[in-house]
Order: sequence, then C-alpha cells, then structure tokens
Amino acid sequence: MRIDLRETAEILQSFDKILLLCHAHPDGDTLGSATALAHALSAKGKKIRVECSDPIPKDFGFMFEGLANEEFEPELIAAIDVADIKLLGKESEGKYQGKIDLCIDHHGSNMMYADKVCLEPDSASAAEMIYFLLKEINAEFTPQIASCLFTGVTTDTGCMRFSNTTPRTFEVAAELAKLGADTYNIIQIFFETKTKTYAALERLALDSMRFYFSDRCAVICVTQDMYKRSGSDESETDRLANLPRQIEGVLVGVSMRELKDGSFKASVRTHGDIDASAICKRLGGGGHMGAAGCTLYGSKQQAINSLLKEIQAEIDAFIID
Amino acid sequence: MRIDLRETAEILQSFDKILLLCHAHPDGDTLGSATALAHALSAKGKKIRVECSDPIPKDFGFMFEGLANEEFEPELIAAIDVADIKLLGKESEGKYQGKIDLCIDHHGSNMMYADKVCLEPDSASAAEMIYFLLKEINAEFTPQIASCLFTGVTTDTGCMRFSNTTPRTFEVAAELAKLGADTYNIIQIFFETKTKTYAALERLALDSMRFYFSDRCAVICVTQDMYKRSGSDESETDRLANLPRQIEGVLVGVSMRELKDGSFKASVRTHGDIDASAICKRLGGGGHMGAAGCTLYGSKQQAINSLLKEIQAEIDAFIID
Repeated sequence: MRIDLRETAEILQSFDKILLLCHAHPDGDTLGSATALAHALSAKGKKIRVECSDPIPKDFGFMFEGLANEEFEPELIAAIDVADIKLLGKESEGKYQGKIDLCIDHHGSNMMYADKVCLEPDSASAAEMIYFLLKEINAEFTPQIASCLFTGVTTDTGCMRFSNTTPRTFEVAAELAKLGADTYNIIQIFFETKTKTYAALERLALDSMRFYFSDRCAVICVTQDMYKRSGSDESETDRLANLPRQIEGVLVGVSMRELKDGSFKASVRTHGDIDASAICKRLGGGGHMGAAGCTLYGSKQQAINSLLKEIQAEIDAFIID
Repeated sequence: MRIDLRETAEILQSFDKILLLCHAHPDGDTLGSATALAHALSAKGKKIRVECSDPIPKDFGFMFEGLANEEFEPELIAAIDVADIKLLGKESEGKYQGKIDLCIDHHGSNMMYADKVCLEPDSASAAEMIYFLLKEINAEFTPQIASCLFTGVTTDTGCMRFSNTTPRTFEVAAELAKLGADTYNIIQIFFETKTKTYAALERLALDSMRFYFSDRCAVICVTQDMYKRSGSDESETDRLANLPRQIEGVLVGVSMRELKDGSFKASVRTHGDIDASAICKRLGGGGHMGAAGCTLYGSKQQAINSLLKEIQAEIDAFIID
C-alpha cells in the first residue's frame, strides 16, 4: 500500500524499537538517510538500529557516531532507499522476506515488496524525502543529521549536477547548509578528492574510451588488469561512470567494469530524453531515466555488443522522435 | 569610498544611462552579473550597455539576448566584478582611468580605483551580491536574469565546491532555481561537458603532473606543444586549474600554462588555511584565499622554481602553525 510522508511519520512515531535496513554496496543516500532518521528517532527516546549487509566505507563513518545501534527484537522493520528486496544482499533478503513493514524510497522502479511504501519518484534522493519526513516528526536537526542528509542529497545527484536535481533539491541543500551541514568537507571528500591510485585508474579508463553511433555513444571498459596496473580496485570505480557522458555530443555514456568472475557490470548514463533504465531493463538491470545499470556476461566484446544493440534502439527512437 | 548594497541601489536608480564594464578574459561571474543587472535596469526604462574588451565566448551568448546594448554617452560608469582597473584590458584601462564612478565586487584584493566601491569579500561571487542588489531595487527576476546569476554563482564556486561557498550561496542558488534558472543546462555546459579536444588536453596535462614537498604540492604544466597535439587552445585551459588539488593529500595545486610569448600563467588552488593570494601576490599576481593567479617569466623550470619557493614558504608556515 502506498502511503505519504505524514502517514510514514505517524507509523514511525507509534513504535519504539525500529530496525532500519540499507541496501548492500551502500552509498551516501541509503546510509545518510537511514542514519539521519536513526539519530532523529533516537533523540525521541526510541531504540533504533541501522543494518547493512556490507561493511560501511570509512568515509561514511561519521554518520554512525553517537548511534547506539544496539541489538533488539524490532517492532517495525523499515527499508530505506531500497528499491528491491534483492538489493539488501542475499542473506538479508532471505532473512527479511515478507517481513518488511515499511519502505521509504525514491526509485520509480521500486518493487513494492514492503507492506507500506512511501515512494516519491520525483525526489532526487531518499535523503531529500527524509528531510521533509523529519520536519513532519518535528525532529531537531543537529549538524550531524544535516551532514548525513547533505551527503545523501549530493551523492545521489552528482553534487546537484544530474537531471534528477530540482529546485526543491537546491532548497533542501540550502536548508541543510544553514542547519550546519559540513558542506565543504562532504563535497571535498565525495567529489573533489582522488586517491593517486584512482587518478591512475581514471587515466587508463579514459585511454580505453571508444565512440559509437557517430560519437553519440562513448564506452569505457575497466578490466581487472587495469586495477593491477593502477593499484586501484573496484571500490573506486563508481566515479568513472560519469566520464563518458561528459564528452560533448555524447548522448549515452557507458562505463563497464570487469568483475573477478569475468562478467561485466555496466553503468549507463544518458542525456535528455534517452531512457537509461529502459536500456538496462532489457538486459536484466534497472535504475532511473538518466542513470541505470546491468550485469553482462560473455566476452568483453560480446558484453559491449549486447549493450550497444539496446543503446542503438534507444538512440534511434530518440532521433526519430 | 565604501558603500553598501542599499546605497548602490540608490545610485543605480538615480541615473538613466549606465555603462557596465566587465573584466577582460570574461568569465561567467563578470558577464552574468553585468547582464543580469542590465536586464533588470533596462526593464525599468533605463539605457544600459554592457562592455567587455574581449569577445564574449559563445556559451555566454544567452545572457545578451534581448539587451539593446546601444551606444550612448553614459551618466554613470560601473565596473562589475573587476578587482583592478588593469583587468579591464589595456585599451579600456586608458579610456576609463579616473572615470569609474562605481565598482561592485567581491574580491578582497580590490584596488579601490572607483569613486564608490560596493565590496563584499565574503560573497562567493559578484552574482551573489547582484541577487540581493536586484531585490533592493525591486527588480522582476525573469528566468533569463535567474540564469545569468546562476551562471555567475556556479562558475565562481566550481559549482558550489570551492571553499568560498557559504550557506548563503546555496540559498541564492536555490532561490534562482525556483525563479526559473535553467540550472541543469547551465551546469551541463560549464561543468559536465568536455570537448574532445579538451579531453585530449586534459590527459596530456595529467601526464605532466609532478609532486613536490612530500606530495603536498602538485603541479601540471600545459605547453604550447600540448595545444598543438590535442587540437585544443588556451581558451579551454581554465578548467584544468582544479585538477592538481583534487589529488588526496595535496594542499597546493598549481596549473601552469605557457603563453605564446613564452611566459607562464599560473593558477594556484589551495586547501584549508593556505593562502593562495599570498603566494601569488609575492609574484605580482593576486586573487582569493583559495584561488589566485600570477604570471611567471623565464624558462619553464625557472618559472616553476620561483613558484615553488613561495609555495614552500606558505606550506612551512601552515605546518608549523
């Protein structure tokens, strides 16, 4: 059942022991949203635990400072920024199947696996929703909460640069800045700092860039060999996803990376009316209009070819429109 | 004489023929600020001309749409975002020496060459000041004016990423977004689009990166030869300025470019409390705390050495502090 933010606030306020679930391979939005909510509800005397099946990357550590995160039998289980129960990770998926009471999410592709779903597909991030949710519950916005949410707002919008960014996104960012979010350092850490190994990987990735369809599509492919040569690893690959689309005239930018099992994970970024999620859905993946992903099998060339076929269909439809 | 925004508004409202001067080698802030002011004052029936001694880059063309920009004998001459009369360009400097009635600027290094100076060094951009100035004169904020100002606000802050960005900067950006600024396309054009020639130049520049002082300083140097090899030119070099500072641990990032006369223009970007303008001032340049520039002479190695000497002094002072 779909519910709105006010109903979501009422539900959260009516329970005392709440488990908040983040998606696996956690990012700034799922963690920032869940921890901001956790801090706000803890301050109201509730027992809250934030759970994620993968380790928390160190850059997000500040979000958990001061959270007791103790063990208890939850009265309410809520998934935050989790479009599909599969995204909780294999073990958690089995453990929580059929048991998730509430989902707060902004992905249009949400699988409606929770009993009650608060879904705002026009919200650029879950954190943008949580900002308004915390206002509904009259939460006190500490600088830490503001920083958690600001991290979610910026990391899910490429620091206000993706097409999901709306005037409301800017407004929320401004409010969080006024509330004491550590805007400068958050932006430096997540957008303006490259490790030397990442910088080396980026150069190898840029060298691999190939163009297709009269330069309307650009593809980079990061191989396991490139990780070895740069000293980098898969954890640093996400930031490469935007590079191909940045080239003038490119409508579809693809960043592929070879996984250890030989399969390829592709991130697709599009401009304008070209639907990245349509491309990826046909290959078993999903995502948003401007940013989506899928996993590809076979040789590198087979993987590229299967993706190019779907991209060509989208570009052709776009050009004819 | 220093005046505030209200007095500035009164002066602008009391004249009917106003010339607005932009600095040479124009950027989004000087042009966005001057054109926004021009549109707002024109709408109040005044004759306004925006003048710049260099050609207007095509990406800023939208700012001038609908501006009559006709010839007339000005009753008031105002320089916008111009810290030093020299920055008007040689010819204009001679022409307007001693004749500039008003200066609206945000550079702490302003030379106070104008009769009246409205200076807000805490403002991240002149456009941020103009936003409040237009409120003072009860201007109607058209989407075009909002876009002109949004361009200034973002281009002078590296899209909200530089240390000059304050909560007020976010607030102004949010207000401009709500007023209809074309935020997405402005950000795409100025921050997320690379020509193929720029992308090639960037790779050559990154290859030239060298580290000094235990990796606390990174320097890239773009030579005339690199322009030839990449097909790029000096107009595309500004964006390189931030790259060296992005490397983890780098406190001072320098981007040098060789001019056609063999001299070098250096852009210095710093983190934290290291004063880029102090470094550049000692070499005859100037700027802000976090971003400054200067011109260097001699061979490439001599140029680098003279800069490194000043950088070392600043880093040493910072580390001892």
